[in-house]
Amino acid sequence: MITILLKDGDVLYPDGQVRQSDIAISDSLITQIGTVTEQADRIINCQNKLIIPGFVNTHTHAAMTLFRSYADDMMLMDWLQTKIWPAEENLTADDVYWGTQLAIAEMIKSGTTCFADMYFFMPDAAKAAAESGIRAVLARGMAGIAPTANQALAESENFYKEWQHGADGRITVMLGPHAPYTCPPEYLKKVTVLAAKLGAQIHIHLSETASEVADCQKQYGKSPIALMQELGVFDYGVLAAHCVHVSPEDIAIMKDKKVRVAHNPGSNMKLASGVAPVPDMLQAGICVGLGTDGAASNNNLDMLEELRLAAMLHKVHRLDPLAIPAKAAVDMATSQGAEALGLGNITGKIQRAYKADITIFEMQEPHWYPRHDQLSLLTYAASARDVHTVIVDGKILLDNHQLTTIDQERLLSEVGRRGMSLINKS
Amino acid sequence: MITILLKDGDVLYPDGQVRQSDIAISDSLITQIGTVTEQADRIINCQNKLIIPGFVNTHTHAAMTLFRSYADDMMLMDWLQTKIWPAEENLTADDVYWGTQLAIAEMIKSGTTCFADMYFFMPDAAKAAAESGIRAVLARGMAGIAPTANQALAESENFYKEWQHGADGRITVMLGPHAPYTCPPEYLKKVTVLAAKLGAQIHIHLSETASEVADCQKQYGKSPIALMQELGVFDYGVLAAHCVHVSPEDIAIMKDKKVRVAHNPGSNMKLASGVAPVPDMLQAGICVGLGTDGAASNNNLDMLEELRLAAMLHKVHRLDPLAIPAKAAVDMATSQGAEALGLGNITGKIQRAYKADITIFEMQEPHWYPRHDQLSLLTYAASARDVHTVIVDGKILLDNHQLTTIDQERLLSEVGRRGMSLINKS
Repeated sequence: MITILLKDGDVLYPDGQVRQSDIAISDSLITQIGTVTEQADRIINCQNKLIIPGFVNTHTHAAMTLFRSYADDMMLMDWLQTKIWPAEENLTADDVYWGTQLAIAEMIKSGTTCFADMYFFMPDAAKAAAESGIRAVLARGMAGIAPTANQALAESENFYKEWQHGADGRITVMLGPHAPYTCPPEYLKKVTVLAAKLGAQIHIHLSETASEVADCQKQYGKSPIALMQELGVFDYGVLAAHCVHVSPEDIAIMKDKKVRVAHNPGSNMKLASGVAPVPDMLQAGICVGLGTDGAASNNNLDMLEELRLAAMLHKVHRLDPLAIPAKAAVDMATSQGAEALGLGNITGKIQRAYKADITIFEMQEPHWYPRHDQLSLLTYAASARDVHTVIVDGKILLDNHQLTTIDQERLLSEVGRRGMSLINKS
Repeated sequence: MITILLKDGDVLYPDGQVRQSDIAISDSLITQIGTVTEQADRIINCQNKLIIPGFVNTHTHAAMTLFRSYADDMMLMDWLQTKIWPAEENLTADDVYWGTQLAIAEMIKSGTTCFADMYFFMPDAAKAAAESGIRAVLARGMAGIAPTANQALAESENFYKEWQHGADGRITVMLGPHAPYTCPPEYLKKVTVLAAKLGAQIHIHLSETASEVADCQKQYGKSPIALMQELGVFDYGVLAAHCVHVSPEDIAIMKDKKVRVAHNPGSNMKLASGVAPVPDMLQAGICVGLGTDGAASNNNLDMLEELRLAAMLHKVHRLDPLAIPAKAAVDMATSQGAEALGLGNITGKIQRAYKADITIFEMQEPHWYPRHDQLSLLTYAASARDVHTVIVDGKILLDNHQLTTIDQERLLSEVGRRGMSLINKS
């Protein structure tokens, strides 16, 4: 029985070709692509619509939406020490629930069907994700230098046991040691022991800034990447956020250890962290997905913007207009992102037997004309606000621009109030 | 008599502050800002809306929208010689009319109230601009090396006489010598003679690519900027597009001769031209506006995207998170842009006695929450598709997202057909 039939849409196939096709969805899965003549519970007319795999946001701190627009155009340490950390001190579990729901609402409305989060009060973040219907890969952020270091390990273990494969399998859990500069070697060793015990993968920030790498060289005589290899962190499956300042030797290690990268061009630009050598990573065969990072350092969760920045930033940085062409950028935002999260066999592609995680763009707008090439229009001209319908796990979460699982009016009222209150307290 | 009253909006003042205010418009002008109690022909409730001066797009080739998505991810000369130039050969006056209308529709819908165009069949472009109600600064592009070189001069003179201060003063005309590499010195001399005769200003491409500058050095022993100074081009008021590869000496000349710059970060990134030294230009006191360039090299006409790229590209390029803060980027997209077009005394600011050229953003969306700082939200989080209402010269051109002067359905049908036909012929 077909539950949803997408009729006559322009479909982006995994090979980058766009062809008019129908898509049949039965329960959570894509069951047919081509010409579908059977009846369905719900038929969506997709003429003049572009159907793509939903975006995969491989790195964010969802509840930091509450700090969106609170502090910008500042030096990183000034920003953290005088603004973000004091404000985060005031966060409650309820704030994280609402801040995560705000992030999810924004992501669904801009076409993201799956995201990787690292933050705290994660059972509350998981509750927001479960209720919303989105797919999520969640990690309790752990800082070995914090007074809560051991508590964070215990919470991570409990969180894994409670939520791994939760919400009908939509939620998976990783361990989230924050970074080498906040997690000393002995603490990272404890994390690897826990990863081995649980069979859990690891989500970590690596080599985001030049000073981080210089400090690591000074303290340990090697780069963060080389240090992680030595400590065995890469033996459990690693999603590494940023990797801006990585050497050819680092890239060789990353390739060898199958490290998957979350590239965050918007955050790296706004915080002036630098430009990651993404063309070199791709050439080496490393899996690179895209992420927005948190809304305090971006300041939105718009994956189409990241896709476009990935396509444009590396061109100007390398002075090569062929660096990261449209197809490569779209793959990073979809199939490569899914692979980066360990979900490459179930999402990130419009393909039979894959999960029905689908984003549909309305194309009846001036910026979508003429239509010489839909992949180019998506990459270089579209707006995330053109997203018309979003389906995750076979359920419609956005229906003609309207959220179906989130009460937007109540949400905006809650987060408006909570956002102001957090700042006034700090 | 108040013709339009904007009630209870969050208004962006020229000093960068946002305060809730009413705005009264009488005919073409802003007549009151503050608390307005009088009646009006039309009242727009602006609660939860951000009111800003309309964006000024200082450099585009409007009708090139017809080539949007036709050719991307190519080397510049390959792109021009095998794709764009052959397709442009087929353009008719009617194509330019429709292509320009497409550009204007897209610009109005994304909050642009004034644009500077350089292309050909300009009376047809002017007709599209006049009918639409937008403000425009138009130039007939002239190439001295083309067979049409002298004809272009004559057309420019006729076009100036016919359209300068046309359409109730909404249209002004500049002379448009394309660039030093397509206009030899003797031809540029003729352009300056015509400029002096008409009292016309000049719109020209300068120092866009490194090879252009190297070729100019080789041929004339000086940079394009120094060559223009020597030829007297800068004596008539110049809008210079790109200025990517300019030296400190060039910047000193530009400052001295009051050259105004159209910075096109999106085009410069996509074509891998390089990063213009905008922070240095601003520090020198040079007027820098923002432009989208043509849709074939961008690929949209979204000024909010340019504003954001300007704020983010220079941060990462200089490794300085304080380079081009939000206020500077917004000014470049509005008041500085107006000044760059010689319209700084009439548009680009929400100010009494200025033209009512106004863009209103809807803020009731997740990415506009919480609202710690509206200027930051505009710069780093907003979407051009949040534009709700656009007013030019006191007339509403976009009303609750709907174009009032352009038949969008007919337009999309025309340009879809014409775009395909141009390519099939070439």
